[in-house]
Amino acid sequence: MATLTVPEPVPSPVEDAERLRKAFQGWGTDEKAVIAILAHRDAAQRKQIRLAYEELYKENLIKRLESELSGDFERAVYRWMFDPVEREAIMANVALKKNVDYQVIIEIACVNSPKELLVVKQAYHGRYKHSLEEDVASKTIGDFRKLLVALVSTYRYDGEEIDTGLAKSEAKILHDVIEQKIFNDEEIIRILSTRSKAQLNATFNCYKDEYGSITKALASESPNEFALALRIAIRCITSPKKYFAKVLRHAVDKSGTDEDALTRVIVMHAEKDLKEIKEMFHERTNVALEHAVAKQTSGDYKSFLLALIED
Amino acid sequence: MATLTVPEPVPSPVEDAERLRKAFQGWGTDEKAVIAILAHRDAAQRKQIRLAYEELYKENLIKRLESELSGDFERAVYRWMFDPVEREAIMANVALKKNVDYQVIIEIACVNSPKELLVVKQAYHGRYKHSLEEDVASKTIGDFRKLLVALVSTYRYDGEEIDTGLAKSEAKILHDVIEQKIFNDEEIIRILSTRSKAQLNATFNCYKDEYGSITKALASESPNEFALALRIAIRCITSPKKYFAKVLRHAVDKSGTDEDALTRVIVMHAEKDLKEIKEMFHERTNVALEHAVAKQTSGDYKSFLLALIED
Repeated sequence: MATLTVPEPVPSPVEDAERLRKAFQGWGTDEKAVIAILAHRDAAQRKQIRLAYEELYKENLIKRLESELSGDFERAVYRWMFDPVEREAIMANVALKKNVDYQVIIEIACVNSPKELLVVKQAYHGRYKHSLEEDVASKTIGDFRKLLVALVSTYRYDGEEIDTGLAKSEAKILHDVIEQKIFNDEEIIRILSTRSKAQLNATFNCYKDEYGSITKALASESPNEFALALRIAIRCITSPKKYFAKVLRHAVDKSGTDEDALTRVIVMHAEKDLKEIKEMFHERTNVALEHAVAKQTSGDYKSFLLALIED
Repeated sequence: MATLTVPEPVPSPVEDAERLRKAFQGWGTDEKAVIAILAHRDAAQRKQIRLAYEELYKENLIKRLESELSGDFERAVYRWMFDPVEREAIMANVALKKNVDYQVIIEIACVNSPKELLVVKQAYHGRYKHSLEEDVASKTIGDFRKLLVALVSTYRYDGEEIDTGLAKSEAKILHDVIEQKIFNDEEIIRILSTRSKAQLNATFNCYKDEYGSITKALASESPNEFALALRIAIRCITSPKKYFAKVLRHAVDKSGTDEDALTRVIVMHAEKDLKEIKEMFHERTNVALEHAVAKQTSGDYKSFLLALIED
């Protein structure tokens, strides 16, 4: 469930656009007003506000926000303004700049349902006049390229049917290569990237029954980045909410805040399933997500995130 | 353009279903009647006939046809009865039996537009409760697996934009590895499987300008099956009709007829672009396709193919 709250009754898009315009004018921006409006409108309402603003002031609202705001706050509002599909296309593209952020690519490829991933890829085509596949392929090399291209390309079967014999035999294949620490084995990539999520869940359960947890087996390695990437893919497929709760735990770690990860998870899930992720975070850390975020962030960025988190 | 001809006015689906029923009854099947009806109805009309037949006789028309007909004729009618998307899903599945027919998989992956391929993959999900990706991946090995999985998985960008600099640099990458005869190089598979068709056409044209024809370079090898597969993919992407005209030339070769290939090309294209393929066949061989087919086939199979070819 979402944590996003929308006032009842909600102001009209024109009223919101007018209030935003007012917040931009004069000496300095009224960030509080920006947050009060935008952090409490859903994707469809934000879109209506963008349209109304453009109509009224012949100006692109997102561009104006970029020039009015700054730092982590600007980046968070920028991501928030797009609808979920467009946002994921943008985040994939950003993740492919310079130092490829493979974690984001894996999340987009593995958390989405096959149909959702397809729609993100279509949005990517429309926006960048390229396919996600070719950009991932041309920006990566070696084993990571093999894994990432396979994960973003695939159009998995989405049904619930399970082949138990296959789950057993593929659990054994996975175990045999992981035991030998051949993490880049073709078979791992084949199984992870082509099987349906239901089938993969069955396979990982067989693995657990026979040999123990596959993610633990991959983690037990002295830091091997590729094994880590495989773990992320498996967690995104089998238990995405638990995975994101963990990303949040790391993002607000006392040793240093990871604003990119924090923004990403909150912005992407506030309208979807942040409530459950928040509960998992609380259970595991005994600290409410709001408190952890409040402690590790400051200023308008903090206010904006809290407005999205609090349900 | 299609070669399929439909009578004007066309009988109602119920009339056709009744005539088919009559053709099945009594001593032996009236194959001529079956051909006269089915070889002159388009996909939508055949579907209506199937529905009318099922409604009238509580019997599946396709199953009945399978039991009434035999040999190459039966296989051709069976393929013809499905609508194009369903048919391609079936043909991909058949191609993955025992000895994988990689040529058919490459054709389906590379001739279709990205959207058409997607629809075939969706039909494959619906029919087999598996993805095409996972079936290709689990039925193939080694370099062929890498190539085929990449080709069927990808969702290419479908726009016309071309990056000339990229075409030049990727033509050079291709040339460098082909010159060294490293046909299974990762870069070949990456470029062939992820770039848009427009971009690939530009790349192969650059290749031609700088180094000569890429398909000739791949063919100049003493038979290397993988180089041959790459050639097929390139031809399916750049000039599918010319490619199919060549498949037909080989299929009716005097040294022996390849009925599978002959049926496949005629059934798949009669309703689409067989007219142009036929013209290319004629230009290259100085023989009309009808004559070549008539010479190399016989019986009801021959009559059925000729009914589809003649426009």
